[in-house]
Parts: sequence; C-alpha cells; structure tokens
Amino acid sequence: MQQVTTEIISIGNELLYGQTLDTNAHWLCTALTQIGIKVVQTTTVGDEEEAILRALVAATKRAAITITTGGLGPTQDDLTKQALVRYLNNALVRCKQTRTDGQPTSQAEENAPTPADSGPAAWLAHGSSIANQLGTVPGVWLVQRGKVLIALPGVPYEMEQMMQDTVLPRLRKNFDLPASYHKTIHTIGIAEPQLAALIKPWVAALPSHIQLAYLTALGTVRLRLTAVGTHLIQLQQQVLAQVHQLQSWAAPYIYGYDEDTLEAVVGRALQVCGKTLAIAESCSGGYASHLITRVPGSSAYYKGSIVPYQNTAKQELLGIPAATLEQHGPVSSTTAIAMAKQVKAKFQATIGLASTGIAGPSGGSATQPVGTVWIALADEQTSYAEQLQLGSHRCHNIQLTALYLLNLLRKSLLKAS
Amino acid sequence: MQQVTTEIISIGNELLYGQTLDTNAHWLCTALTQIGIKVVQTTTVGDEEEAILRALVAATKRAAITITTGGLGPTQDDLTKQALVRYLNNALVRCKQTRTDGQPTSQAEENAPTPADSGPAAWLAHGSSIANQLGTVPGVWLVQRGKVLIALPGVPYEMEQMMQDTVLPRLRKNFDLPASYHKTIHTIGIAEPQLAALIKPWVAALPSHIQLAYLTALGTVRLRLTAVGTHLIQLQQQVLAQVHQLQSWAAPYIYGYDEDTLEAVVGRALQVCGKTLAIAESCSGGYASHLITRVPGSSAYYKGSIVPYQNTAKQELLGIPAATLEQHGPVSSTTAIAMAKQVKAKFQATIGLASTGIAGPSGGSATQPVGTVWIALADEQTSYAEQLQLGSHRCHNIQLTALYLLNLLRKSLLKAS
Repeated sequence: MQQVTTEIISIGNELLYGQTLDTNAHWLCTALTQIGIKVVQTTTVGDEEEAILRALVAATKRAAITITTGGLGPTQDDLTKQALVRYLNNALVRCKQTRTDGQPTSQAEENAPTPADSGPAAWLAHGSSIANQLGTVPGVWLVQRGKVLIALPGVPYEMEQMMQDTVLPRLRKNFDLPASYHKTIHTIGIAEPQLAALIKPWVAALPSHIQLAYLTALGTVRLRLTAVGTHLIQLQQQVLAQVHQLQSWAAPYIYGYDEDTLEAVVGRALQVCGKTLAIAESCSGGYASHLITRVPGSSAYYKGSIVPYQNTAKQELLGIPAATLEQHGPVSSTTAIAMAKQVKAKFQATIGLASTGIAGPSGGSATQPVGTVWIALADEQTSYAEQLQLGSHRCHNIQLTALYLLNLLRKSLLKAS
Repeated sequence: MQQVTTEIISIGNELLYGQTLDTNAHWLCTALTQIGIKVVQTTTVGDEEEAILRALVAATKRAAITITTGGLGPTQDDLTKQALVRYLNNALVRCKQTRTDGQPTSQAEENAPTPADSGPAAWLAHGSSIANQLGTVPGVWLVQRGKVLIALPGVPYEMEQMMQDTVLPRLRKNFDLPASYHKTIHTIGIAEPQLAALIKPWVAALPSHIQLAYLTALGTVRLRLTAVGTHLIQLQQQVLAQVHQLQSWAAPYIYGYDEDTLEAVVGRALQVCGKTLAIAESCSGGYASHLITRVPGSSAYYKGSIVPYQNTAKQELLGIPAATLEQHGPVSSTTAIAMAKQVKAKFQATIGLASTGIAGPSGGSATQPVGTVWIALADEQTSYAEQLQLGSHRCHNIQLTALYLLNLLRKSLLKAS
C-alpha cells in the first residue's frame, strides 16, 4: 500500500505578520496523521494571489491531497478562490497541450470550463461544495488530474467542524489508507532523560511498526505510541499489550491515557473513593483550585479553597498559630501540614492539600532560595509534606506547585484504593 | 527603499505529525515584521534531507534571507547540516557554470569548497557560527551569492535568545531596513464589531502609512498600529498622536498598552492608591486569584481569597446568612454583594471582589441558564453587582468571569484615582 501524501497551505497576512498563531495547520497535521495520511509539507503564504497560486502549483505537484485554509471570506477579496480558478485554468491549458501526445482525457476534463471562463462563479465547476454548519462561507472539494484540492475557511472551529463532518470521512472513503492506532500515555514526576533511561529495555524491544515519541510539557512527559499496519484490531491489541508492559516499568509515574488530564483523573478518583477535597494554597495562589474546578461536575467532590497570601491570613483565616509561623517559618514542612489539616477541617472535607513557598522572582534567601516550596496532604488517617526545589521562573513555579500538589493527591488516592 | 524579504523553514517530523505546535515560525514572523523585514512564506518540512534541500532551494530563490529552525542537533542525524552542504555544493556547480557567461565571481565563491568537499565539517566554510548561550548546538550564518542563509536550533528559548543576541542586530546592521514603530492598545468590555463601529471615524482618518489590525482573544480585543517610514522619532510621534486621539473614542475600554496585562495594570493601580484586595470566587474557582498572584510582587496588595465551592462553605467560611442564599439564591446580586463584603472583612482588605454563577455545562435552569454569572465589588464607600450572560463553554465562562471581575476592579480604581 502506497502512503497517501498531503500538503497544507495556510493563507493570511496575519499569519506572516506574526499577529495570529497558525493552529489550523497543527490541527490538520494531527487529524490527518491519525487516519494514516502523511503530511509532507505545510506552507504559509500571505493574501497575495501570485503567492497562493505558486504554493498551489508546488503542493499539488508533490502531494495527492492539498488542503488550503483561509482567504475564502469576502473580507479577504476572495483571493483563494481567484487563485484556484487560475490554478484550474493553468491545469486545463497544460491538459490541452498534452492531448496532442495522445494521452487519455478524463470526463471531468472534457466538461471543464475553458481558460476564458475565469469568473469567480466558475470556480466550483470541477468541484463540490463542503457545507459549513458554523459559518457562512462554504468550502470546496476539487479533483484535478487525480489530485484532490480542498479549500476551507480559516476560522478554526468552522474548519475543524467541516473536517470532522465531511472531509475526513470522504478521505477515508476515497483513499486506501493504512490502519493506524495511537495511544498516548501521560506521566508526571519524572523528567524525560530519567524516564528514557528507566524504560530503555522496553523501548529496545518495541516492534518496528510501533513508533514511540516523547512529548515534554511543563512538569509532564507524554509518550505517544503509533502503530501502522493493515488490521486495526490487531494493531490495537499490539499497542495495548505494549502499554501493559510499559506499566511494569513506569507505573508510579503514569497518571492517564489519551485525553485524560491530571485534574480529571484525581476528580474521578475522589468520586470513586467517596472523598471530598479542600485546598489551602499560598504559593500556587489559586491555580490548583482553578485546575480542579475547570473539570465539569467538580462541585460534587470539591469543597473549596483558601488562598492565604499574607501571614495574617494564614493565622486568622486558616488558624495557623503565630508560634508555628515564627518557629518554623511560613515556608516549612510544619506550616504546610498545619495548613492542610486546617483547611480540611474548615471545609469539612476528607482530604486537605496545602502549598507554601517562594515563587519568586524576589523573596528568596541563602537558606531558602526562590523555588523552595513545601506541599502537604492531610486525610482522615495521616498527614505528610514534601519539599520541592523548583527554578527561578515565577509562573512555572506556580504551575508546577499546583501540578505536584494534584500528583500528591493522586498518589494518596492510589494507595487508598 | 526596497523591502527586504525573508522565508522561514521549520524542520521536524514532530511538526508534521501534529505532535508539536510550531511556535518558532510565529515568533520569527513577529520579530522580523517588527524590524521592517517582510516574511513572504513559511514552510514546514520533515526530517528528510531531500525535503529540506528542496525547501532551501525554493526559499533562497524568492527571498533575500532564509532562516531555518530545527534539525541541527545530534539526535536528528544532522540532516539540516547535510542539506546545507548539498545546497552549497549545488550552488557552487551553478556558480561555476555561470562563470563562462563572464559574470563576476565574488571572493567568497573563490574561497568556497569544491563540490567534492562535502563532509559535514565543511559546512561552515562559507559562514560564521552563531553562539548559543542556552544550549550546546551553535547556529550558522551563511552568505551565498548575495543571499543570507541562517540555520538555528529548534528549541524555542535557544532560538529566541540567538535571534535577540546575534541575528536581529546583524540583520539591522547589514540591511537597509525601513524605520517602523508598533503600538498595541489593549481593550476589554467591548466586542470587535462594536469597537470597530465606535472608532470608525478615527480609523477612516488614519494616515496611509499607519496600518491597523484587530487581534481578538477571549474577552479582549487588541488594536495594533504599525507605522513604516524613514524617521523613527517621527513615526513614534505620529503613532502616539493617533493613540491620543483614539482615547477620545474608546477610553473606557482601554486598559493598557504593549506588554501590559490586565492583572498587572490593576496591581499597579492598587499599589498607587494604597489599597488591598481580597476575592471570594465561586464561579471563577480560583482563576482570578491565579491571575492576580502571577504578577511578581502581588503579595504587597493581595490579601488572598476564599473559593466557596459549595453552599455550606458560603455560609460557614464567608458568613453569608442561610436566609440570603435561600431567599435570593446563590447566583444573585444580593449573594454576590454579600460575598464581596464578607471577603473584604475577613481578609481586612480595602476592596472585596466576588463571583457566583453557573459555569456549566450542567446546573442551568429556565430562569438561570448556563452562563448566568453575578460579579460584585465592595470597597470602603460602596458595593455593587453586575450581571454577565456568558455562553455554554465551561472554561470560557470561568476565564471570562475572572477577566470581567478584574475589569470591575479596574473601573472602580479609575474612578477613585
């Protein structure tokens, strides 16, 4: 089976000016890769007819399928449409020239408009319209000398919906695509080099048709397995068997799969165990609470939080004794545990979490540099704290503290279940 | 003055697989546009020597400057380097062929390696190394037949640092660039169509060398003015005069300029007025607190927050009477104002903010659909609430509630100052 190739052309001055980040090409790359189509190049050009035409000619020479986004709306002067009409006419001229060589002419080419027929109304002559449920500008699906050319609007949610509703199903139907199966494994609490070292024997034993990619984000590492072959069920079984083996190497660090988020995973675990949560977050400043509450239905297990951003609030609202703060300092194991216990009691929750630390950029000292953070957990049986030594980037420190706080909870719920 | 053109080539399979979003091309577009260089195309290719070479040949034909990112590290098998060596050798062959036409030969071409000299070690023969302060792989700056070719690593922070330290200063020095001046105006509380209608007369009167772009994000609209000409000081004066005029049309909606964020703007205003803040956030779930605390130094004016995510917490921790909750409902003007007053008192702050609402996707009713939100402010003189009617997207509702909460504070501090 030959690999089906695609090129993507993103059209818009705002992309080349750096005013808008092109998320369309990225989304299309993910969606096409997942159905077994190989993206060989993506190109971004401005709102200039010559540039669009040049990109169309180059892309359709190389790839079986070309997808454009943008430049279809009335405000952009229909430049993509104009360029498509010119592309089709050029192709027709080439096609008529080759007829003298005795090459067969397709029915579509016989019915095609002549080069003179270049008005914008003629641009659909070779193609069919792609409905746009969320906007006003339809897309178009053209076939020209065996090459597929798809033009879609640039508004991301309109483009995505049209891909899901029409383009992806039609590509699956029209092309002989390989079966492919993807699985993403989410890990936390281990850096990429350490994880790579830990799972090295497993990686070495992966069969050649299953590819592994490391995707690192702040505080987490994702492993992405991609299997390509002929039988979907078989590929699925093979990948899941590999995931099962991976667990024997890296289970403590794996928090979820595919679309899972850490906050949704701990939310489900809280619900399963029938537990409720409250958080006292000083260093993380409300971010852990935000992560928890962005999960739909979190009010079932989340009681709430207190963000005591000054020492007086730690005393008066959380009830941390002044003596504890003076003797151990606000950034200490003792204070963190006291905060977790107090917030648990105040909210009548079954589990309390707490963070206290120096997010930076100022506030550090020789003994407690910026990035020194304590996180703590208190439940019905026990309480404990963990020290983190993070970096000097304030926003990273806030986000990492919240992530590790949720990971502390995840590990505790794992033990309980 | 002729416009200096650039093309950007991003290299990496992970980009075409959709595993990594290419932020490098976007960053480069912004940085180059700002110094008056026109980006005419960006191209993404995979880790394949032929594809990289093809993109190099195409880009250097069109543009005066070509910048590549990625494919320089040892793990990618040095494919960018290999492609560059082949590109240089091909160019040399072409160059030797043209010598018979009597064209002049530059000194660099005379000193260039012969096509046989194609080892990876030879790739710097035409160029100079670009230091990488944050990583191990240096970049390279090549000049070939008057075209500049710059290869940089793909790690974003390394690439950005090398651009700032070496490439941008050198481009400014080597090319006769137009003077350009940019100013971004940040607005909140008005949608793009309404803003466009409001400032229409101002837009109509803008001089032709000052361009306006609308950049819409969730809850905010940025206006970006770009002036291109010959004298920087003059451009700056002209743009600032336009900004001054804009204020007479849209002042109530303008919260900042350039790198300003809403949370930093209200933070500065609190400090200037000598006021302190506490927040009771139910609907926004800690996100407003997160926005405030991600600003360095926020502990000077931020006392903290309570997130009462269940009604019992509203009663017991905030002290909202059960009668208020029963009579008016948790999502009401009365409850929002009571929350703002109580959190202000609990934290001994001078200003209290509160949010309460139905973030969704469930929990709505006929009279209070999903997206119904009340936000409130209480200070030393007064207290008031505002109703928001947002959409059905939970995360958007949370973020918009937090933004409008900070905007309520901004407007109150404006009145006070």
